[in-house]
Amino acid sequence: MAKAAVLFLLVLLPFSDALKVQDFCIANLLLPSTPAGYPCKPRALATANDFYFRGLAGPGPTVPPFNAALASAYVAQFPALNGLGLGATRVDIARGGVVPLHAHPEGSEILFVLEGTLSAGFVGAETNAAYTKTLNKGDLFVFPQGLLHYQYNLGNATAVVFSAYSSSDPGLQVTDFALFANLLPADVVSKVTFITEAEVMRLKRFFGIRSLPTGQPI
Amino acid sequence: MAKAAVLFLLVLLPFSDALKVQDFCIANLLLPSTPAGYPCKPRALATANDFYFRGLAGPGPTVPPFNAALASAYVAQFPALNGLGLGATRVDIARGGVVPLHAHPEGSEILFVLEGTLSAGFVGAETNAAYTKTLNKGDLFVFPQGLLHYQYNLGNATAVVFSAYSSSDPGLQVTDFALFANLLPADVVSKVTFITEAEVMRLKRFFGIRSLPTGQPI
Amino acid sequence: MAKAAVLFLLVLLPFSDALKVQDFCIANLLLPSTPAGYPCKPRALATANDFYFRGLAGPGPTVPPFNAALASAYVAQFPALNGLGLGATRVDIARGGVVPLHAHPEGSEILFVLEGTLSAGFVGAETNAAYTKTLNKGDLFVFPQGLLHYQYNLGNATAVVFSAYSSSDPGLQVTDFALFANLLPADVVSKVTFITEAEVMRLKRFFGIRSLPTGQPI
Amino acid sequence: MAKAAVLFLLVLLPFSDALKVQDFCIANLLLPSTPAGYPCKPRALATANDFYFRGLAGPGPTVPPFNAALASAYVAQFPALNGLGLGATRVDIARGGVVPLHAHPEGSEILFVLEGTLSAGFVGAETNAAYTKTLNKGDLFVFPQGLLHYQYNLGNATAVVFSAYSSSDPGLQVTDFALFANLLPADVVSKVTFITEAEVMRLKRFFGIRSLPTGQPI
Amino acid sequence: MAKAAVLFLLVLLPFSDALKVQDFCIANLLLPSTPAGYPCKPRALATANDFYFRGLAGPGPTVPPFNAALASAYVAQFPALNGLGLGATRVDIARGGVVPLHAHPEGSEILFVLEGTLSAGFVGAETNAAYTKTLNKGDLFVFPQGLLHYQYNLGNATAVVFSAYSSSDPGLQVTDFALFANLLPADVVSKVTFITEAEVMRLKRFFGIRSLPTGQPI
Amino acid sequence: MAKAAVLFLLVLLPFSDALKVQDFCIANLLLPSTPAGYPCKPRALATANDFYFRGLAGPGPTVPPFNAALASAYVAQFPALNGLGLGATRVDIARGGVVPLHAHPEGSEILFVLEGTLSAGFVGAETNAAYTKTLNKGDLFVFPQGLLHYQYNLGNATAVVFSAYSSSDPGLQVTDFALFANLLPADVVSKVTFITEAEVMRLKRFFGIRSLPTGQPI
Repeated sequence: MAKAAVLFLLVLLPFSDALKVQDFCIANLLLPSTPAGYPCKPRALATANDFYFRGLAGPGPTVPPFNAALASAYVAQFPALNGLGLGATRVDIARGGVVPLHAHPEGSEILFVLEGTLSAGFVGAETNAAYTKTLNKGDLFVFPQGLLHYQYNLGNATAVVFSAYSSSDPGLQVTDFALFANLLPADVVSKVTFITEAEVMRLKRFFGIRSLPTGQPI
Repeated sequence: MAKAAVLFLLVLLPFSDALKVQDFCIANLLLPSTPAGYPCKPRALATANDFYFRGLAGPGPTVPPFNAALASAYVAQFPALNGLGLGATRVDIARGGVVPLHAHPEGSEILFVLEGTLSAGFVGAETNAAYTKTLNKGDLFVFPQGLLHYQYNLGNATAVVFSAYSSSDPGLQVTDFALFANLLPADVVSKVTFITEAEVMRLKRFFGIRSLPTGQPI
Repeated sequence: MAKAAVLFLLVLLPFSDALKVQDFCIANLLLPSTPAGYPCKPRALATANDFYFRGLAGPGPTVPPFNAALASAYVAQFPALNGLGLGATRVDIARGGVVPLHAHPEGSEILFVLEGTLSAGFVGAETNAAYTKTLNKGDLFVFPQGLLHYQYNLGNATAVVFSAYSSSDPGLQVTDFALFANLLPADVVSKVTFITEAEVMRLKRFFGIRSLPTGQPI
Repeated sequence: MAKAAVLFLLVLLPFSDALKVQDFCIANLLLPSTPAGYPCKPRALATANDFYFRGLAGPGPTVPPFNAALASAYVAQFPALNGLGLGATRVDIARGGVVPLHAHPEGSEILFVLEGTLSAGFVGAETNAAYTKTLNKGDLFVFPQGLLHYQYNLGNATAVVFSAYSSSDPGLQVTDFALFANLLPADVVSKVTFITEAEVMRLKRFFGIRSLPTGQPI
Repeated sequence: MAKAAVLFLLVLLPFSDALKVQDFCIANLLLPSTPAGYPCKPRALATANDFYFRGLAGPGPTVPPFNAALASAYVAQFPALNGLGLGATRVDIARGGVVPLHAHPEGSEILFVLEGTLSAGFVGAETNAAYTKTLNKGDLFVFPQGLLHYQYNLGNATAVVFSAYSSSDPGLQVTDFALFANLLPADVVSKVTFITEAEVMRLKRFFGIRSLPTGQPI
Repeated sequence: MAKAAVLFLLVLLPFSDALKVQDFCIANLLLPSTPAGYPCKPRALATANDFYFRGLAGPGPTVPPFNAALASAYVAQFPALNGLGLGATRVDIARGGVVPLHAHPEGSEILFVLEGTLSAGFVGAETNAAYTKTLNKGDLFVFPQGLLHYQYNLGNATAVVFSAYSSSDPGLQVTDFALFANLLPADVVSKVTFITEAEVMRLKRFFGIRSLPTGQPI
């Protein structure tokens, strides 16, 4: 009981000074989120360090089958982004590596190439037109919200990209993981994708045993 | 020139009476859209018929490989929806038919079963958890924005569903069409999905020659 | 105290796993709402049943003076709608029944006729133009946000409509209830509507004693 | 043709300098509106006078049955409000006068009493609770979006109020005008309001012959 | 512990009746805010007084160096504004007084002159064009969101203005306070403004010792 | 006339194919903007190059007094950003250089350090607290919407930063330019800032003769 009470006090007490302004709203990740983001941490506790994040200074953990390393600066990692409509990631794609087909359900993406050469592409909705481009250091490319896109390394060295998103929590749905890394039976996946059941089974074996770098089951 | 002038007059003249109110904004589909929807048709030209649409009273055209028929009431078909944050479709799924895996980049969906029995499911982002359910007449199910989902007929008769969307233009990206019904080379598709190139080629042949019922190239 | 502590633990503890993504936000109705909706229930507790609702499979309770039965699927009944910008109702209008004049302050409505024949209409703002239409099975009609509208049965059988809204909580203000089913004195109602005080008194007697089907005082 | 061409040039040519910034967007009322407001007038033509409006310095025209005078500063009268989410009105209510029951479908209202004493009230949705208050000079009152509300003069002198809205085009639906000042047949109005047909006919005669001060038919 | 428990009960218990509608959401200032505003106070506790505010009936406290008095009706003072997208202030500018250069990061402002004569101006972004105007009783002026603006008294009597904002918490950043009334070293301020360090020091001494009328340190 | 007609045809004709979807909306900069962005270029004309921009691959033009070079990727330079809620800039700050105090009225900023060492800071509204930090390669920092902020080089080499914004047109108001690079009289600037008139005159001479790199008058 004592622990809950302490947590309770930490969470609910120091709000009197929070009432004045809302020029920013650093997420209090101990409270449940809402459709518009997390409740704000008390303003008086804000320091410059809240607005600072070093997690993209180097590569994140590598996701093995892809030879690509992902580091994220979303609201869960960088709470000052709460309510600001911005998020960021850094992806280091090793030689031969790939960021597999995926979509962000809640945000558009602007990609800036820090190093290397890569191929990027996305597919428009309904027309199914594919927009693909070779990108080099200093190039920008845009992936509109919710559309399937990918990148893969075209060069001999690691390619590094910095991406910003129009949401502090844009979401990430990797098509392979959505199809093969869960309990959907292979015959259902085959039925709704027309991929043969044998190929689905092969990919389920390939993807089903893997986990995301953060360790949560996939 | 005369034609352009006439179009010009039709498009630009009767706006003086449009200035009073904007309790609705029927799309003028002759003018280019904006990120918030189409320009409004002059208010004085609005009649009750603008707010009425009969296009979902029966099945739409069947999309052959799926044995499913789609009829849409989006802003392009039903211009009064412009700016209202609502769209609708009717899908008639024949026995054995399927609405293949797809996502709506710009809207959530609420599905109401009019007839029959079907299986519906979607996959959450990042966790990749699958949420699946058998649905019968009168059931509601919800697909959150941008997430991959599907339905297929479980019964012996045609299943019919009415869906509403939180956008008058939610978009539709069918995973199979995005992967196989465009000019993306098979090796690229294989590289970013890990599906074998042979299977990609088979599916490109299967989907590449088909067109959507409205006849636009896919 | 023990009860509060238990509630406290239920409410505040399991949030660590809620931090990862927000591709959906099932309402936790035990916590207070915000202008953007309810706080999210912990993600790890989500199951397919959260996205499923059977409450519109049959008619709701009948509201006696109207001979119409209303069943709702708003966030309070169907918490998965939280933050998705969608709600739904089913209305069964008996022979001779009516959905009386009302408005939804927070959402537009798209109406789909499931059975029967009815008359639907709404009134534009400022111009006061009335847009009315006879609707049959399969017809769609749209009521833009906040405008007064109505429906009544034109046929010999029950008419049934399914409506979707651009909000998970569009609100409902029935003009008769707003005028006659509360403590506003009859002379005030007469003064601000120009309806005679005698007629107001008659209608207050008619409506004042009734309650909504959910039993809250009106 | 020449006129159309000239209008065309005025409307389409000077946009090259409009591309730089959008810190404001003064409405070009000659072009059709969109769901997010009017297209912007070329920035280079903006002067301080665009941001200035004197139309609320005195009473607007009186609406006879109400003994109230309405002056509006919406986007149609004050184009600089376009896209800013703000509108304003001034209402002068003569002794015995009333602002009859009405709602704003697209905006909330904050009312500030400039002179006099009045009664103000609104009705909540579903609960139908009435919130009423006597207001004096300097008082603020708030009417949430889309809810029915009214004011009437309680004193011996003219009461004057300044109201601001959360929209540059909040709309105005006067219940009496919506019910009685259009072509809706009396029996339909009676059916959907339960007001007797005789009283509806009396009110149609009373309101049906009047026009709004701006002269448009009601 | 007992106090926390009582607070806890007050805060969390009476929500069952809050679930029905959200036609308004009076802020519960005891709970932390979110990016979309404060959690709602239980609906059953709402009374007409919640929608009423008398704090702008007279001048607020004077801010000494400016000879201007500010009274605010934002969500922190007037909780019913929560989620409505509206706020208000009253400023009384004594003879010779000034509302110094400032911006509202989160809202646009519409200013209505209640008494007196003043000069108002704002500066556009990038073009840096200044839009200035002499304003008299009854005049409206608009300051678009986030742009630097000011007012000063031009007459011999106190000028009084009522302003409404497109946010219930528009924020206020006074340029002088931002530059001179905090711990930013004078050389840094000089470096990023090109104002001489001597002048910065003079202004730091002038502003650094003052506090806002609410007493919080500046 | 012929030219206008040709422009007219280019602008208005090819919209029939634009009606299908709006998964993106590339700005047509020849048409006037709206509060939600520019009208869309016809979809059929979209190519991969529309989503690609090379303008941040090197430094932009140097702004002389600051020893900093600014390159922008806003909607005016990169039309595919229209409606996506994203913009970007690259700033190269030479040794001793500074990005002077400024604010973005319409967007928040996330800054990623590409090279060098710099000091960054912003000032909160009302509290006037300053949040400052030394940043090195790979660091992220956030400036919430509308708040005054700055950066200056702390090292011996050029510092380079990539910033993304939550708007495709966030705006830029440099405090010095707003105060000193326009026609506001020195006594007015002094009156609303309390900077001495002599210092204002010095700064007007310093800034008044300069122009932005794009050549528009400041």
